[in-house]
Amino acid sequence: MIGGGQGAFIGAVHRLCARMDDKYEFVAGCLSSTPERATTSAKEIGLDLSRSYPDFKTMAEQESKRDDGIDVVSIVTPNHMHAEPAIEFLNKNIHVICDKPMTSTMEDAHRLVDAVSASGAHFFLTHNYSGYPVVREIRSLIKNGEIGTIRIIKSSYLQGWLGSKEEDSGENKQAEWRTDPKRSGVAGAVGDIGSHAMHLIEFISGEKLESVAADLTTFVSGRKLEDDASIMLRMTNNIKGNLSISQIATGEENNFRLSIYGDKGSVHWKQENPNYATLSKVGVTNQIITRGGSIKQEGSSSNVRIPAGHPEGYLEAFAQIYSDAADVIQNKENKSELIKILPNIDDGLQIMKFINASVDSSKNNSAWVDLSTIK
Amino acid sequence: MIGGGQGAFIGAVHRLCARMDDKYEFVAGCLSSTPERATTSAKEIGLDLSRSYPDFKTMAEQESKRDDGIDVVSIVTPNHMHAEPAIEFLNKNIHVICDKPMTSTMEDAHRLVDAVSASGAHFFLTHNYSGYPVVREIRSLIKNGEIGTIRIIKSSYLQGWLGSKEEDSGENKQAEWRTDPKRSGVAGAVGDIGSHAMHLIEFISGEKLESVAADLTTFVSGRKLEDDASIMLRMTNNIKGNLSISQIATGEENNFRLSIYGDKGSVHWKQENPNYATLSKVGVTNQIITRGGSIKQEGSSSNVRIPAGHPEGYLEAFAQIYSDAADVIQNKENKSELIKILPNIDDGLQIMKFINASVDSSKNNSAWVDLSTIK
Amino acid sequence: MIGGGQGAFIGAVHRLCARMDDKYEFVAGCLSSTPERATTSAKEIGLDLSRSYPDFKTMAEQESKRDDGIDVVSIVTPNHMHAEPAIEFLNKNIHVICDKPMTSTMEDAHRLVDAVSASGAHFFLTHNYSGYPVVREIRSLIKNGEIGTIRIIKSSYLQGWLGSKEEDSGENKQAEWRTDPKRSGVAGAVGDIGSHAMHLIEFISGEKLESVAADLTTFVSGRKLEDDASIMLRMTNNIKGNLSISQIATGEENNFRLSIYGDKGSVHWKQENPNYATLSKVGVTNQIITRGGSIKQEGSSSNVRIPAGHPEGYLEAFAQIYSDAADVIQNKENKSELIKILPNIDDGLQIMKFINASVDSSKNNSAWVDLSTIK
Amino acid sequence: MIGGGQGAFIGAVHRLCARMDDKYEFVAGCLSSTPERATTSAKEIGLDLSRSYPDFKTMAEQESKRDDGIDVVSIVTPNHMHAEPAIEFLNKNIHVICDKPMTSTMEDAHRLVDAVSASGAHFFLTHNYSGYPVVREIRSLIKNGEIGTIRIIKSSYLQGWLGSKEEDSGENKQAEWRTDPKRSGVAGAVGDIGSHAMHLIEFISGEKLESVAADLTTFVSGRKLEDDASIMLRMTNNIKGNLSISQIATGEENNFRLSIYGDKGSVHWKQENPNYATLSKVGVTNQIITRGGSIKQEGSSSNVRIPAGHPEGYLEAFAQIYSDAADVIQNKENKSELIKILPNIDDGLQIMKFINASVDSSKNNSAWVDLSTIK
Repeated sequence: MIGGGQGAFIGAVHRLCARMDDKYEFVAGCLSSTPERATTSAKEIGLDLSRSYPDFKTMAEQESKRDDGIDVVSIVTPNHMHAEPAIEFLNKNIHVICDKPMTSTMEDAHRLVDAVSASGAHFFLTHNYSGYPVVREIRSLIKNGEIGTIRIIKSSYLQGWLGSKEEDSGENKQAEWRTDPKRSGVAGAVGDIGSHAMHLIEFISGEKLESVAADLTTFVSGRKLEDDASIMLRMTNNIKGNLSISQIATGEENNFRLSIYGDKGSVHWKQENPNYATLSKVGVTNQIITRGGSIKQEGSSSNVRIPAGHPEGYLEAFAQIYSDAADVIQNKENKSELIKILPNIDDGLQIMKFINASVDSSKNNSAWVDLSTIK
Repeated sequence: MIGGGQGAFIGAVHRLCARMDDKYEFVAGCLSSTPERATTSAKEIGLDLSRSYPDFKTMAEQESKRDDGIDVVSIVTPNHMHAEPAIEFLNKNIHVICDKPMTSTMEDAHRLVDAVSASGAHFFLTHNYSGYPVVREIRSLIKNGEIGTIRIIKSSYLQGWLGSKEEDSGENKQAEWRTDPKRSGVAGAVGDIGSHAMHLIEFISGEKLESVAADLTTFVSGRKLEDDASIMLRMTNNIKGNLSISQIATGEENNFRLSIYGDKGSVHWKQENPNYATLSKVGVTNQIITRGGSIKQEGSSSNVRIPAGHPEGYLEAFAQIYSDAADVIQNKENKSELIKILPNIDDGLQIMKFINASVDSSKNNSAWVDLSTIK
Repeated sequence: MIGGGQGAFIGAVHRLCARMDDKYEFVAGCLSSTPERATTSAKEIGLDLSRSYPDFKTMAEQESKRDDGIDVVSIVTPNHMHAEPAIEFLNKNIHVICDKPMTSTMEDAHRLVDAVSASGAHFFLTHNYSGYPVVREIRSLIKNGEIGTIRIIKSSYLQGWLGSKEEDSGENKQAEWRTDPKRSGVAGAVGDIGSHAMHLIEFISGEKLESVAADLTTFVSGRKLEDDASIMLRMTNNIKGNLSISQIATGEENNFRLSIYGDKGSVHWKQENPNYATLSKVGVTNQIITRGGSIKQEGSSSNVRIPAGHPEGYLEAFAQIYSDAADVIQNKENKSELIKILPNIDDGLQIMKFINASVDSSKNNSAWVDLSTIK
Repeated sequence: MIGGGQGAFIGAVHRLCARMDDKYEFVAGCLSSTPERATTSAKEIGLDLSRSYPDFKTMAEQESKRDDGIDVVSIVTPNHMHAEPAIEFLNKNIHVICDKPMTSTMEDAHRLVDAVSASGAHFFLTHNYSGYPVVREIRSLIKNGEIGTIRIIKSSYLQGWLGSKEEDSGENKQAEWRTDPKRSGVAGAVGDIGSHAMHLIEFISGEKLESVAADLTTFVSGRKLEDDASIMLRMTNNIKGNLSISQIATGEENNFRLSIYGDKGSVHWKQENPNYATLSKVGVTNQIITRGGSIKQEGSSSNVRIPAGHPEGYLEAFAQIYSDAADVIQNKENKSELIKILPNIDDGLQIMKFINASVDSSKNNSAWVDLSTIK
């Protein structure tokens, strides 16, 4: 693991989720860019100190030489620190599981795309919401034509935790780097949570974003990146959509929801109660899709771990990504199916384009910006 | 009543709601633009045929001469038929209660504004959603500073009943005129339901729309007006917002919802369960506002008719508008309060500008359009 | 109308709802048992004073002699004052619409049953929850075998408004008579709201209660009647059930809900959001029944007044009973259908037995009590 | 681990949850009562075969002699196989984590109580619902007097998976042993899921069950144990309650809900959306308790693993029990707090009494049965 030391949040979640299905063992790491903190963090977690490295280059070098060297590395650093270690490990043919969004700049994104092409190793992104069983189910329903031809997509991802200037409190490392252009990149909320929303829209719909008209706003005075965004979407096959993103939506915890309307029906999903979705078909009574219903999942058949009615949650969805990645890496028989749905380098690049196009549109008074123009 | 004869939908709703609080008596009408149908409809409803008129001019003329002539006329015709009768009755100093949106053209809107100025009579619009007790309550909460300074407003109004070409079925008068530019005006969904949403946004927030960037789409092939719209809003006091409108959102019945976020809290309301709202304040547990809770309503104290937990509905909200209007007309003591919250001529004009600006923005590839530029 | 004067609550609701569908005209009344208050109340409402009577006997006498005498009387007095006026008007062949529960004693109940037998007039009870379109719909679904053979019924009706000793406040007439055995009868909460629940259970299921084991408790010290009850039910065809009733369930407004489980499926309905129900069938995705869906109602086809998604509420349901009763009285063509679903004298007697059996069971340490043993 | 081999369900859940917080290592087991199946299961899971034992006695014997022997054993066998292994390991001073209900007979329950008294080791039950952060929070709220003196408790736990005769399908090991009196004990649904409900009622309320009046029914023809139950409760401090239990409630997945009403307020929780609860206080707007709100948890401060709004689920609650047990076993500083809330031998005995009293009451035509009479 690269990153995930003291004060970090998502590193511990990654470790917990990787452990969940007993497919990973945590054996080496460079838990902080500060060597001392890397060591302290390693001790705290109980990592063998001989495999706690002061920097990722040394780690890639040494681990690639060991017989029992790591098969896969997990990168959980801030966005600007994704590309370098990812490229380093890919060059050593070590699989990479990387946090989202892929990089902080388009330039880094393209360098990483090249590294994946040249490497024999896999590259996966933890767009963890795509691991929910019900999310995968509604993706299948759409693919099977249950809602007909998609017309409109409406989504919002609203949080309130940045409603005041948390980054100045001196106690919120998360707020600090997520509002810092040097570490996050060109966008704040759009990069942080908008990237999840946009990935899921494409994942579930099977369609690609083509163009955006965006209005990005920084409401908290003195903040360096936007904390709210309204984005209108134009997608392949004449689909229209809108996406509302905020980290200053006071009182919201993690209110991410998505509705997709076709000419024959629609589906609706909310992350805060993720084990249920609604399927509405023209002329038919609305139906509740549950994790425990007669689900015809695509991808891993292991993705329902507990009985119906027992809420399966965020951690399990996160673990699903890890579990599926392990199956691919170990050439399990469902590999070909899984490889189709795991977030990969193309997804990463697409989301980077989305983020950059949104920023460009907003800078240009919400003019529509085609993704194909983002280089 | 003008309009509301056979095949009409909203006319009967108006009559029922007017009757609800026993403040109106229905004594005269011109129920259809076709004289024969007007007569047949009058018979059906039990209206005294001597006061069933073949056209609104005759009605205005004769009723204004009678000692027991009508005090108030209700206009429930399609949009293009609002202005003429309204002006006619206003000129005779007869109060007017008019369906929304005010007119089908900006030109008519301005003529009507002038007629109201010149008349001694009142003019009200049935933006009925503003009659819900909980809607009035959250308006008061915001006014009292409970959520601090407003930052963002997110709203959607989604229906699915125009998902296929209903206007060609020969059996759906509603679909016919609502998709016909001659009768509806420049906009379809934006005029029909977007007008309600925009009025309520301004009603609750107390702020005014300044500029829109819109993307209007006609999904059903051959339809003459848009049936879906994504609109980004810029409002007074630097408020940002977005509004999603659709009449082809398959499976949706009347899913109108609204969230307003301030720097100290937020409020949330959904029309399909209108007796509840959520108030979320920073650092405080979320609270459920109910019609039966300790409501400090502004305006009519009569607006809670039944005990807590008994869902008061759409009809009651509609009746509230009628009831309040009657109180104003009869100079009841709460008149001055009611006059502040009843939808009036200014609201009508503002909504007309909103509709036209949206259409203009969409025609101009979603460029922002200032409302002040709409004439 | 008998009762419904100053300080009363349900009288005004009755009048509003009777007015809603324009099928009643309010022309005569004895609005209070105190002659002075009857007159004052009549003035307040605008009733012709020549038809405001000091007592119900005089009213029955005089109205039955007039050519334009009333066709129907509405009795909205406390429970102990239902039987006498009802019998009086029935004897004059004037139709009676009576509030529930039917009487305060079993003796009065039987006297009323006899009066109905002897009279040519109709007798209806305002078990208004049976007027909800969705309630009628799930009744039809069950009748059509959609959930198979019924096995269990679970219901609760919870309010919190009597959580403290409201009857001593001197300001709550409702609390006073509802907790007074002389006016309410043998039961408090069971008679007041349990009667609604039990009627609806039988109405929807089409089955009859046979036996109860009950535990009635008075939680508020000094109160004369029970304010909470747990009741186990045994019904026809080996159906088991339980019913939880409370008026001291702090924080509850009018939380009345009901689930019926058969061997092939189940239905669920909640009064606080009454336009929706859930139908769950074995092996099939759960379905949401809405008022606006493809409802195949039995009884009045007029019971959907407004479009889908517009919450039709308590008042409309109440008005439905009045409206249906008017259709029956006027021999409308759907009379035979309506007569089957309108709450009638048999329903009234059955509910009286339920109340008394519950009290007996509880007095006997929750021993099961057969309804057939209640005389 | 004892049990949890092929075909078992809960064993895998126990292992996953034990792994979640990285406080347990799985090193030895007797995964089946059939030695061959024990070996095959051990291989499948990757357990060191030298520590896969053919029977629990051998395992207890050998592990207690090893220097690196197990500290704690997890017992996940059917109910009739809990007591023997538990006593065996307790006698060797090895901590025991045992599935619920504690035993299949009262006799075994008392033998186990004695063994715990005599042992130096801890004994914990996986009443996993008590591990939900929000459940622990509402327990604290009640303890702090937020709802005043408790009056009534209403709970239901409804499943539908035994709606037909699953135990005869030959493919449902779970249905087989859970409906078999030899393996489950005197009760079916009451023992299986009623035990969870009753534990949580006592856990949250801090009160003890004193007496029950029950009506247990077997709806599926030929089944040997009840599959549905209505139970009226009388608890310490004059609290009344009712509990509805079913495994034939068609369409229900795991619908476990609970409401507690005091004289100053009430709390409500539903397992199917377990990250939220409602707190209703007299005269105050209802409040939504969320896992992410300003929770003042008692017990382990580690019990919120992921950020607000990310649904934490069943697995995490289950893991919480394991995690807390590990902290107690390892003498962590929060040990004394945790020991107060972890399900222990007293809880186990109390639940056994509840199950037996319910069966006795139902056999005696629902007469009230005091728990103190159960030996």
